Amino acid sequence: MTERLYLYDTTLRDGQQTQGVQFSTAEKVEIAQMLDALGLDHIEGGWPGANPTDSEFFAAPPKTRATMTAFGMTKRAGRSAENDDVLAAVLNAGTSSVCLVGKTHTFHVETALGISLDENLENIRASVAHVVAQGREALLDAEHFFDGFEADPAYARACLATALDAGARWVVLCDTNGGTMPSRIGEVIDGLDLPGDRLGIHTHNDTEQAVAGSLAAIDAGVRQVQGTLNGLGERCGNANLTSLIPTLLLKEPYASRFQTGVRDLPGLLRVSRRLDDILNRVPRREAAYVGASAFAHKAGLHASAILKNPKTYEHIPPEAVGNARIVPMSNQAGLSNLRKRLADAGLSTDDDGALRRILERVKIQEDKGYSYDGAQASFEMIARDELSLLPSFFEVKRYRVTVERRKNKYNQMVSLSEAVVVVKVDGDKKLSVSESMDETGGDRGPVNALSKALFKDLGPYQAQINDIRLIDFRVRIMQGGTEAVTRVIIDHEDGKGRRWSTVGVSPNIVDASFEALLDAVRWKLCQGT
Amino acid sequence: MTERLYLYDTTLRDGQQTQGVQFSTAEKVEIAQMLDALGLDHIEGGWPGANPTDSEFFAAPPKTRATMTAFGMTKRAGRSAENDDVLAAVLNAGTSSVCLVGKTHTFHVETALGISLDENLENIRASVAHVVAQGREALLDAEHFFDGFEADPAYARACLATALDAGARWVVLCDTNGGTMPSRIGEVIDGLDLPGDRLGIHTHNDTEQAVAGSLAAIDAGVRQVQGTLNGLGERCGNANLTSLIPTLLLKEPYASRFQTGVRDLPGLLRVSRRLDDILNRVPRREAAYVGASAFAHKAGLHASAILKNPKTYEHIPPEAVGNARIVPMSNQAGLSNLRKRLADAGLSTDDDGALRRILERVKIQEDKGYSYDGAQASFEMIARDELSLLPSFFEVKRYRVTVERRKNKYNQMVSLSEAVVVVKVDGDKKLSVSESMDETGGDRGPVNALSKALFKDLGPYQAQINDIRLIDFRVRIMQGGTEAVTRVIIDHEDGKGRRWSTVGVSPNIVDASFEALLDAVRWKLCQGT
Repeated sequence: MTERLYLYDTTLRDGQQTQGVQFSTAEKVEIAQMLDALGLDHIEGGWPGANPTDSEFFAAPPKTRATMTAFGMTKRAGRSAENDDVLAAVLNAGTSSVCLVGKTHTFHVETALGISLDENLENIRASVAHVVAQGREALLDAEHFFDGFEADPAYARACLATALDAGARWVVLCDTNGGTMPSRIGEVIDGLDLPGDRLGIHTHNDTEQAVAGSLAAIDAGVRQVQGTLNGLGERCGNANLTSLIPTLLLKEPYASRFQTGVRDLPGLLRVSRRLDDILNRVPRREAAYVGASAFAHKAGLHASAILKNPKTYEHIPPEAVGNARIVPMSNQAGLSNLRKRLADAGLSTDDDGALRRILERVKIQEDKGYSYDGAQASFEMIARDELSLLPSFFEVKRYRVTVERRKNKYNQMVSLSEAVVVVKVDGDKKLSVSESMDETGGDRGPVNALSKALFKDLGPYQAQINDIRLIDFRVRIMQGGTEAVTRVIIDHEDGKGRRWSTVGVSPNIVDASFEALLDAVRWKLCQGT
Repeated sequence: MTERLYLYDTTLRDGQQTQGVQFSTAEKVEIAQMLDALGLDHIEGGWPGANPTDSEFFAAPPKTRATMTAFGMTKRAGRSAENDDVLAAVLNAGTSSVCLVGKTHTFHVETALGISLDENLENIRASVAHVVAQGREALLDAEHFFDGFEADPAYARACLATALDAGARWVVLCDTNGGTMPSRIGEVIDGLDLPGDRLGIHTHNDTEQAVAGSLAAIDAGVRQVQGTLNGLGERCGNANLTSLIPTLLLKEPYASRFQTGVRDLPGLLRVSRRLDDILNRVPRREAAYVGASAFAHKAGLHASAILKNPKTYEHIPPEAVGNARIVPMSNQAGLSNLRKRLADAGLSTDDDGALRRILERVKIQEDKGYSYDGAQASFEMIARDELSLLPSFFEVKRYRVTVERRKNKYNQMVSLSEAVVVVKVDGDKKLSVSESMDETGGDRGPVNALSKALFKDLGPYQAQINDIRLIDFRVRIMQGGTEAVTRVIIDHEDGKGRRWSTVGVSPNIVDASFEALLDAVRWKLCQGT
């Protein structure tokens, strides 16, 4: 008989406390939809009233199977729950579930809030009761619970009991400062003598043990786990759901013992990568389960054993989480992946030699910093080249871009870029020039100028590229070989709504962009229409 | 009465199995010296005979207090230990300690090695005995011990007993595939009934629990821990000593219970950063203890409490590991953050009007796409400006950058950027020009050229900026207002080891970079030396 274990995501709230992370409303909506498709139970969307994008998100939240939850804090002392404007803003978001953080550590009640211990208990009671009275599900995030328990176990327990008595569906035991050892988390929960199906766990990664702390809590009976995608969060981050989810679904004793709402485990890697994309972060190669290196077998002894039987050096099959094995050199898995990607592009082949050459070229390019995960069109250019399916179309002879910043006639500092591109098409030399000004007179920069010049006159091919529009442009500084290089990924769209991505790499960002632009034009020309 | 706990580093051996990592001999020497200064007990230098840099390293190893250890494998079947050339190469390195990996999992003995179970036991016995006979300390890395124990506990135990009987000082229980839960690691060791001061633990991070698994083993009695700096290692990496060491020294129950050889805990951050430097990796901001964000308090509620008492949201004092507290500026933080940040920069003020103007300007800038979380130096420029503490230093009149790609005299396509920057310093106009070529003739791109031209001649200020070095450069495409803009964050370092970050935003990446470069120069000039 399996038990239900609930997964609560706080990527959009605690995850946004990561240094340098500030989601837009549109990004919040997209992330919520990804979480919902993955199969989370609760999605904490933010703190309505505390910041404008959170309020905007709750004004028009996406429809989800997951329970959308608004975050806030217990009412302040000296006013009723009904008259607390901060709490009112949270309830006004209209979510069916509300999670309020409340103090449980005497030191914090007295030092940070400066109120009496009884006042704090009353704040918890009245706030939870008010949420429940409005017909909502109430959760209490018991802040600093484990530190509070060390300092004054009776008071920490009283806080939990107060919330439960007031009707909280869950009280969530928070290791807010991230310093509690997993073994201690287990001990404390064991001693609480509370029903596990009313308890949640919320850990932080300050000793690199947030995942282990969450599992220790589950071992001790807790049945709700809070965490974030890719372990985002304040300071060192929250418990990483991207690691926890596969452990809970694939590893014993959890796999046999629990049921969760997760319904797309093989989609996990894609979700993890998309979040990095949104944040423009380089995915961690060494991340558990979803990292590009997670199933890479570099040691010679490992690699040869893996070829005999993958179980020799793999604790789970990589495809279970959407990942793939990497075995340097003779790579069977690589070859079947490749066939699949070629078939997707309508480029099936039986030429094993060409397949191996494509693999080898991709490998060499990736060592230089290229990535074809998010740039299928550039991958197709390599494949077509090796399969002799890439017409030459045109040749670029040279280009030049100038970026200038100086005073204009009104004595304002303005900048302007100008690009000249020289191509040879069917024996004709075409010289095109463009500048970076948009319709409103604003400067759009050197890549814009270069793009316009390249797309200006390709002779007989011009009709085929007139409907191309640059949609997105992403830049990352990467390690390519021994030096830092710039990787540019550009998305284009055409009049038929086709969208494709290309990649360029160079120490020079303009060069990298130009390379991606060239691939984009060639890909479009290969489509024939 | 404290017990001695031993730390065994394998950065130079298992750490080198990280995808993309290949140390030079000189780098190995430097890392060994850092580990020794930190206070490790064993340093595993590599596998002599298996790869040329490892052999070279052992030919002239650095003098260390730590026990230098050579790694190898147990002898192969069908020959004596004395006649095994692989083992001979390991012993020929002449280290006082030798660690041999041996099989303990029946599946691996039969599938990967293809020998009988008894032959494998004899390989372990004879190899360990041979090492001991030569007067060396012998360690056995019991490969796949935990998986082996699940499959055939009697055989796995027999392997350990054989090694101990043959004179091994330590048998190291390896969770080679990284899939064993910490709680299971503890259970298995509890049941072994072997003396903990002869047992080591070696875990991998495939479920993000290598640190927790190591601690579970220590809880169960093991007294040697193997790991790597920054968690380098095969696949997802090894147990991260950079996290384990401060936990063992600062956190209970370990701090009171154990003594280690570590003698420079405040040097930990520096060691971690230097390793990243050697590998040309961007340090992980969110790393436990040593990450730049590990003590960054972004949430407004946290930040205001931290100002009252740092213990409210910190599990250890950051300076214990050489780290520092950061209270970043952001939408979610208020006036209390601001005061703290100004105080950190030595810019305290009682002028509430100025404080409000600074907040307002930060907010306006953030709406345009700026972010000051990771760019404290640019924030300081705004604050100094509003506090009338920003001298004008110099004025930029204009700049121009040209990026050109064309054929060189050898008919190769090459690119080159050239930048001209015109500044006015103390009434003098200075015109500087630079190109993007590095020492090897490679093109480093337009921002490099622009940086060199700007830093070339600032007249009386030149002496103050000569020691500035560009360290990192990050680019992100953002929504700023209604249009996509480019945000550039640049890190610089000076001769005193100060490191500062500045931000620039513009639709034009070159302009955005120039803005960040300008802030960087001004910040340095404000430091006065």
